[in-house]
Amino acid sequence: MIKAAIIGASGYAGGDLVRILHRHPEVEITCLTDRTNPGMKFSEVYPAFRERCDLELETAEPAEVAKRADVVFTAVPHKTAMALVPDLLDGGCKVVDLSADYRLHDAAVYETWYQEHTSPELLPEAVYGLPEVYREQIAKARLVANPGCYPTSAVLPLIPLMEKGLIQADSLIVDSKSGTTGAGRKAGTATLFCEVNEGFKAYGVGSHRHTPEIEQVLGEASGSAVQVNFTPHLLPINRGILSTIYAQPTKKVALAEVLALLNQSYADAPFVRVLPEGQLPNVAYVKGSNYCDIGAVVDPRTGRIILVSAIDNLMKGASGQAVQNMNLMYGFNETLGLDITPLAP
Amino acid sequence: MIKAAIIGASGYAGGDLVRILHRHPEVEITCLTDRTNPGMKFSEVYPAFRERCDLELETAEPAEVAKRADVVFTAVPHKTAMALVPDLLDGGCKVVDLSADYRLHDAAVYETWYQEHTSPELLPEAVYGLPEVYREQIAKARLVANPGCYPTSAVLPLIPLMEKGLIQADSLIVDSKSGTTGAGRKAGTATLFCEVNEGFKAYGVGSHRHTPEIEQVLGEASGSAVQVNFTPHLLPINRGILSTIYAQPTKKVALAEVLALLNQSYADAPFVRVLPEGQLPNVAYVKGSNYCDIGAVVDPRTGRIILVSAIDNLMKGASGQAVQNMNLMYGFNETLGLDITPLAP
Amino acid sequence: MIKAAIIGASGYAGGDLVRILHRHPEVEITCLTDRTNPGMKFSEVYPAFRERCDLELETAEPAEVAKRADVVFTAVPHKTAMALVPDLLDGGCKVVDLSADYRLHDAAVYETWYQEHTSPELLPEAVYGLPEVYREQIAKARLVANPGCYPTSAVLPLIPLMEKGLIQADSLIVDSKSGTTGAGRKAGTATLFCEVNEGFKAYGVGSHRHTPEIEQVLGEASGSAVQVNFTPHLLPINRGILSTIYAQPTKKVALAEVLALLNQSYADAPFVRVLPEGQLPNVAYVKGSNYCDIGAVVDPRTGRIILVSAIDNLMKGASGQAVQNMNLMYGFNETLGLDITPLAP
Amino acid sequence: MIKAAIIGASGYAGGDLVRILHRHPEVEITCLTDRTNPGMKFSEVYPAFRERCDLELETAEPAEVAKRADVVFTAVPHKTAMALVPDLLDGGCKVVDLSADYRLHDAAVYETWYQEHTSPELLPEAVYGLPEVYREQIAKARLVANPGCYPTSAVLPLIPLMEKGLIQADSLIVDSKSGTTGAGRKAGTATLFCEVNEGFKAYGVGSHRHTPEIEQVLGEASGSAVQVNFTPHLLPINRGILSTIYAQPTKKVALAEVLALLNQSYADAPFVRVLPEGQLPNVAYVKGSNYCDIGAVVDPRTGRIILVSAIDNLMKGASGQAVQNMNLMYGFNETLGLDITPLAP
Repeated sequence: MIKAAIIGASGYAGGDLVRILHRHPEVEITCLTDRTNPGMKFSEVYPAFRERCDLELETAEPAEVAKRADVVFTAVPHKTAMALVPDLLDGGCKVVDLSADYRLHDAAVYETWYQEHTSPELLPEAVYGLPEVYREQIAKARLVANPGCYPTSAVLPLIPLMEKGLIQADSLIVDSKSGTTGAGRKAGTATLFCEVNEGFKAYGVGSHRHTPEIEQVLGEASGSAVQVNFTPHLLPINRGILSTIYAQPTKKVALAEVLALLNQSYADAPFVRVLPEGQLPNVAYVKGSNYCDIGAVVDPRTGRIILVSAIDNLMKGASGQAVQNMNLMYGFNETLGLDITPLAP
Repeated sequence: MIKAAIIGASGYAGGDLVRILHRHPEVEITCLTDRTNPGMKFSEVYPAFRERCDLELETAEPAEVAKRADVVFTAVPHKTAMALVPDLLDGGCKVVDLSADYRLHDAAVYETWYQEHTSPELLPEAVYGLPEVYREQIAKARLVANPGCYPTSAVLPLIPLMEKGLIQADSLIVDSKSGTTGAGRKAGTATLFCEVNEGFKAYGVGSHRHTPEIEQVLGEASGSAVQVNFTPHLLPINRGILSTIYAQPTKKVALAEVLALLNQSYADAPFVRVLPEGQLPNVAYVKGSNYCDIGAVVDPRTGRIILVSAIDNLMKGASGQAVQNMNLMYGFNETLGLDITPLAP
Repeated sequence: MIKAAIIGASGYAGGDLVRILHRHPEVEITCLTDRTNPGMKFSEVYPAFRERCDLELETAEPAEVAKRADVVFTAVPHKTAMALVPDLLDGGCKVVDLSADYRLHDAAVYETWYQEHTSPELLPEAVYGLPEVYREQIAKARLVANPGCYPTSAVLPLIPLMEKGLIQADSLIVDSKSGTTGAGRKAGTATLFCEVNEGFKAYGVGSHRHTPEIEQVLGEASGSAVQVNFTPHLLPINRGILSTIYAQPTKKVALAEVLALLNQSYADAPFVRVLPEGQLPNVAYVKGSNYCDIGAVVDPRTGRIILVSAIDNLMKGASGQAVQNMNLMYGFNETLGLDITPLAP
Repeated sequence: MIKAAIIGASGYAGGDLVRILHRHPEVEITCLTDRTNPGMKFSEVYPAFRERCDLELETAEPAEVAKRADVVFTAVPHKTAMALVPDLLDGGCKVVDLSADYRLHDAAVYETWYQEHTSPELLPEAVYGLPEVYREQIAKARLVANPGCYPTSAVLPLIPLMEKGLIQADSLIVDSKSGTTGAGRKAGTATLFCEVNEGFKAYGVGSHRHTPEIEQVLGEASGSAVQVNFTPHLLPINRGILSTIYAQPTKKVALAEVLALLNQSYADAPFVRVLPEGQLPNVAYVKGSNYCDIGAVVDPRTGRIILVSAIDNLMKGASGQAVQNMNLMYGFNETLGLDITPLAP
């Protein structure tokens, strides 16, 4: 039994961390912090949790949090995270950071897309928390940088093909569509119900900060630099990311070959479901679960490979993956606390 | 470990039965039947279940089903159910019937609102499966008539007050609003996405078949005949029923008294959450779970008691309650398999 | 051709005023004010209006606005309105006030439900802008208090019956459900997409400020004091209010009689559609239009009359009705600019 | 004043044709046919039209329809249309066909993607009804093949660039997302509310029948054969298509150049709105209107041009464009009956 703290518990990712951890057989939640609703019960912010998790939200400093927890989940925005993580590590905790602050290995790249990095000395030891690829490093890590939601959906379908050199590195287009929990729980006009409902738009075209993260992971898989066109869109649903990925193969390739590679790569991955020929993912079928569903098509006319992936952005795209990482870091079964059937409809 | 069969597994209630039972620690699903998609895997009808429940849908006759199961859930429409249940009981099974066929004690009332009853001889032994009220009878029952979704939401808030004689029997108005899974999974123009989305309507006003069921349960609680005005509405959401209930008290009553009665009645009910003064339910906060949330207001000007309840119509309103009944019938802990946190957002 | 100004143009009601007025054949919009986005074009706040209305949002004071307009629509919150209206009237304008500030005739009642009234001297001349009832007074008015959205939906079905003494005054229950534009366009956590979507709740039970407004109008219709139980709910749709109204008749009444009364009362009302027996309203069928659809049922068992009405809360519930009032105030055809087919689906 | 008939009036495109035409100043609707609800009033199928269009739905044969109309809109599925159109033309009518039957110039291509063509002799005279490109031919046409919804959204942004030879013909990827009215009004499980709501999926990947139509139009614009990857997706909204289009330029190109080309091409197109740099379309901002909004980005790193377009699939994607074509065919102002502000929110 380990003790876990969540910093930033009232955001949507924080909420799902509690949803998983308060029933995790090896975890006791000892501390929830939140600066916007201090003193409130967690179940007052999220009434769904009445009688399930009535812990009080605190404003404890990192050093204090560290004393009360073995593992800390930092579910806060980038920049805020790197102001906390060094103290948490110094306090002897393991950390799963859900922000972007430790995902990019190269501080210079980070500073190009975000802002100055205040603890670049931690970057070399931070492990990118994509268990399907970095399982062994995660198991030994003290600091895991939990992947972004879009990158998770973008790289899982591509990695097996990139590793085999099957994809032209400059051909990649990732067209992603995310549910609105991805925009967070902060009040704002643009995410009001009436502004999102019955609407659909692209945003951050050519400039979204998840782009270098996708490129870093795919570059490592393929062994050379990769550039992608990444376009996020906002879906009028609560949860889910569907990514439609276009890739030009380096040689003519059959669908059976693509599916075989995916199946082989993910044979031991409990949360990746590779769909058979003729079937494609729907975000509805992974809602509330930690699955990443992957389907593939090879266009008979253009020869392009089209990959489609679906995740729940708060689960495999954030909190579910964070707990999967924690499980690995503590030697628990990877699926502990995460054996959740999607809620559909 | 008991063996369970579900007849009508491809409907929405059937789907949620599988969602609960395939992870229930004391249950093995041995048979799923469905006449519309025979031969398909359950996970082809509900792709959310890929790699979780890949059982084949069968068209087995009741006698055959009875041989392979200890308990059978009949998740089929009224009339269809009563054509199956006698054979299932004869085959030695216990039955939880999710249809309306065995809910009304009086065959004549049934025949007024539905059609001829073909097995009225079973009505005396059928137990109305509302565990919060009939827990002991359910524990001994061979045939449980699982309550309707609307009645569950209507009667749970009222029963404690009716039992105390606090409510004028002829004053009751139940204004209910249900998510669209309540309309079932049958193809039809009226439940197409574009017909329901951005819409809201009342239907079955003054004539909905759940009316006599509500009246029967409340009549038993109060000890005399009760008539209600029941109005259902269709909500453009997947899951959830919110009932707003108006009742004239027999004497001036304070909110504190109402809440105390509710709290006392449901102190040992694991799935009823009585909200404190000033808080009211939202269907979002029970989604996917077996909870019934209840809030109350006493109008300071008119003196009326206004009760508001929220359930997930497929869970506490159907499949969750059915499993709760099964747990009682087999002496399992009432919450086994049902300890599910609502999924919000 | 008259000149119109809208104060508070960037709210949802302001937006619909522009939608109607920028194509009204007798109106020129000369001034749009907004304190939150000064200097922006209206079409930058509402991109739907690109190339249709690119006027700049101003912060002009009332005296200045009055110089540039014949009629001013104040689409601002209560309290804000009464700080502007006296100056607008002094400046020689006619005013249609969409706030609550001039709806209640009795300043004491206003002050019980809202706060101190700063221009009670205007209350005697303010006309309640429900054209179906007060058409002649509106035609002569300098100041029209545009009705609340909920009251419009509640009183139109009831007035013909109240006028005939058909309803027991203490039996009235109004159970209303509103789309989320009713909550306005102000940033806030509670109206974020993910908090509203897939949810449904009651709010303001027994305490909503539209209650005294409903009671005032019904009291005038019936000739004696009326008390109602009014319960609003929040619907996960953009536009629409559906009110389900329960009334005990003073004597046994047939549905045909109720429908005949409604049809007779609204024979000359271009925006009220009384539905034939067996048909009930749906908010989808009035979306974007100025219609109020009304259906009725008489419960054969309890004898209660159940009335169901549907309006678009931004149209007949706010901006459409405001323009209808303006048409009457200037002697235009009542339907000018408002002959809009509902957009369904 | 011309007489118009609509064949297939009870589908969603039929409904929007009535919405436009029943208020069109130069049109009288003389005949609505529908085989699924014969004898019903149009306003019984679409209650939004109560008191606005109460015409009866008929089952008249084409020859009979032709006698009563000058122009006929065939809003029926492909194959059904070509069984009617020859008779309508023989009867002396002009025809705007909303099906796919006369869109492809080459019967062989049609037969590859659809089925045998039964009136290939009409293909040479059929004009592809995209007014922004084929305005003059449409004005003289007897038979206009109204474009598909997806193709309209795909080709309008690309044509100006293809005409200038700016795009590598084999680089085109069109990732489109459509509201659910695009799936029609036929009962079916896959388009039930609960199957679509809170979901999102791709379908017809690499095989959708709108692909050859896109390629034909772009081929004509560029002067040589074009192949695209076209991927449609299903959005949980009623109306709207957003297409995100990826194109590799033949030479380095600046965004200003792209926008200038678009602005120049569509300077006289009343329904195309080219957005300024930094702004991108949202389907919400064209809802209910005939606009096509277009935005553009040039990715500074990959050099790709990304175009985003938004239309209402029932308006510019079907019925609005059909009336725009009719206006041209009869020498009316192109915007007659179509000067509709989008309904947002």
